[in-house]
Amino acid sequence: MIQTLIAKIKKTGAPIVVGLDPMLNYVPEHIQKKAFAEYGETLEGAAEAVWEYNKGIIDAVWDLIPAVKPQIAMYEQFGLEGLRVFKKTVDYCREKGLVVIGDIKRGDIGSTSEAYAVGHLGKVNVGGHAFYGFGEDFVTVNPYLGSDGVKPFIKVCQEEKKGIFVLVKTSNPSSGEFQDRLVEGRPLYELVGEKVAEWGRECMGEEYSYVGAVVGATYPEQGKILRKLMPKTFILVPGYGAQGGKGADLVHFFNEDGLGAIINSSRGIIAAYKQEKYASYGNEGYADAARAAVLDMREDIAGALEGR
Amino acid sequence: MIQTLIAKIKKTGAPIVVGLDPMLNYVPEHIQKKAFAEYGETLEGAAEAVWEYNKGIIDAVWDLIPAVKPQIAMYEQFGLEGLRVFKKTVDYCREKGLVVIGDIKRGDIGSTSEAYAVGHLGKVNVGGHAFYGFGEDFVTVNPYLGSDGVKPFIKVCQEEKKGIFVLVKTSNPSSGEFQDRLVEGRPLYELVGEKVAEWGRECMGEEYSYVGAVVGATYPEQGKILRKLMPKTFILVPGYGAQGGKGADLVHFFNEDGLGAIINSSRGIIAAYKQEKYASYGNEGYADAARAAVLDMREDIAGALEGR
Repeated sequence: MIQTLIAKIKKTGAPIVVGLDPMLNYVPEHIQKKAFAEYGETLEGAAEAVWEYNKGIIDAVWDLIPAVKPQIAMYEQFGLEGLRVFKKTVDYCREKGLVVIGDIKRGDIGSTSEAYAVGHLGKVNVGGHAFYGFGEDFVTVNPYLGSDGVKPFIKVCQEEKKGIFVLVKTSNPSSGEFQDRLVEGRPLYELVGEKVAEWGRECMGEEYSYVGAVVGATYPEQGKILRKLMPKTFILVPGYGAQGGKGADLVHFFNEDGLGAIINSSRGIIAAYKQEKYASYGNEGYADAARAAVLDMREDIAGALEGR
Repeated sequence: MIQTLIAKIKKTGAPIVVGLDPMLNYVPEHIQKKAFAEYGETLEGAAEAVWEYNKGIIDAVWDLIPAVKPQIAMYEQFGLEGLRVFKKTVDYCREKGLVVIGDIKRGDIGSTSEAYAVGHLGKVNVGGHAFYGFGEDFVTVNPYLGSDGVKPFIKVCQEEKKGIFVLVKTSNPSSGEFQDRLVEGRPLYELVGEKVAEWGRECMGEEYSYVGAVVGATYPEQGKILRKLMPKTFILVPGYGAQGGKGADLVHFFNEDGLGAIINSSRGIIAAYKQEKYASYGNEGYADAARAAVLDMREDIAGALEGR
């Protein structure tokens, strides 16, 4: 799947992943109204509104980008109805030929991580049959429990030719609280990064491993160090746009081959119509605004990479 | 909710939580057969088998214990059908008066943690209405992202009078890989423990905080240190039984008041009928075997606490 991701990045010229992280207040009023009219102001109604909103965005941007990253929490907040729409979104994106990165940040003791890996990337056995649960292509994984919390995901990736991105240095303001603590003079995230590189060496596609890393766009200096520490690791970079990251901050996340990183923007794309810059699209034009924002993001990143 | 948990521990004399972590191969054949006959060898069939199995165990042990801890991964592996049974299990346990600890180990950047908190502990707003998603009483939380990944859970706990258990030192063999690394001469788990105590001070029930910690039974020495470092913190202790922890290892997780810890056993209870010790119950008697195993565990822990 890492080869598919790389091929799609090359084809689209866009090392971009659109984060499908719908909050109900991002969903334009006309979509909410229609869904509530049909299903009431219920969890089902909310989920239906999210689905219509997602579908509009996917239909408007799918040809420009290699991948999407639905954040499962935004669906899980609506309980079972929300998760039904998470699954529907995963399925629809895969039908459109998009690589789907499930942003699930799971991680547990061995046997439990195995269950997550099976449910999200692999197949679960029921009697003589095997079924995909959610069927993403990649998922994000939390490393706090160490190797035996991560390796079950790697095992399923090997069987299914899928991949993971392990949290190394996250984009949020307090990520340094534990991740930056010095261990023998070096921040913890570097040790985690080295571990990711080590796990990844056994899991190579061609130039890159299918064990990737998450490093926030909001920490460009750390990104520069981690890029060198994990040369064969694909880095998923959240925090562009709404969280504050800009194209110029991102150049050091890429290798000389122009690859090695994929930049996520969520709110900055899917709620672009709420920004002054794209206000002329109006509520009804939210999907076209998302398309315009993807084009602008592609240009910003390409410009930064050319200018380095 | 921490007061409810403490009251129930006192009433039952059992600082015990039963981990409802069903693997399909724990489910006795007669239950699987019946479910598959009705729903086929499908995800729905598997989920139905898990539900019948859970219900049998809950009905057999509910009067002996204060709490249950369903591990969501074991349901998530069956996709939406599995999560439907997770919800059904949460609801049924709450109807039986049990405190439900959702073992979800979620944790993300602020706005995303808020969505998880709302979905599992709180209510999500849809138009003018508010709905519970999964509605557990407590959940487990991963601290790797720092304060702004944890505080949204605390906020919802304050609103809903619920609680969390933050991973500090997990029970698995490789938990030391990152958690034991020395920061200024002290292991990372101690720093996390201190943070948990700090978060907890603002969230007090009576004697104990509703911000608790997870510390594995498999690390009794670390448990002793953490007990002193977090005197007002309730500790959820996994790893008893099948993972190797014994009653004698557990005494230092408790305070002098005999409180402050709740010990989880999953496989050792719910699959007790597979152990030689309880083999006479047979497959059909799996729920009675679980009851016998709870009684033995209660005695083991009470004996260890009396003997200290």
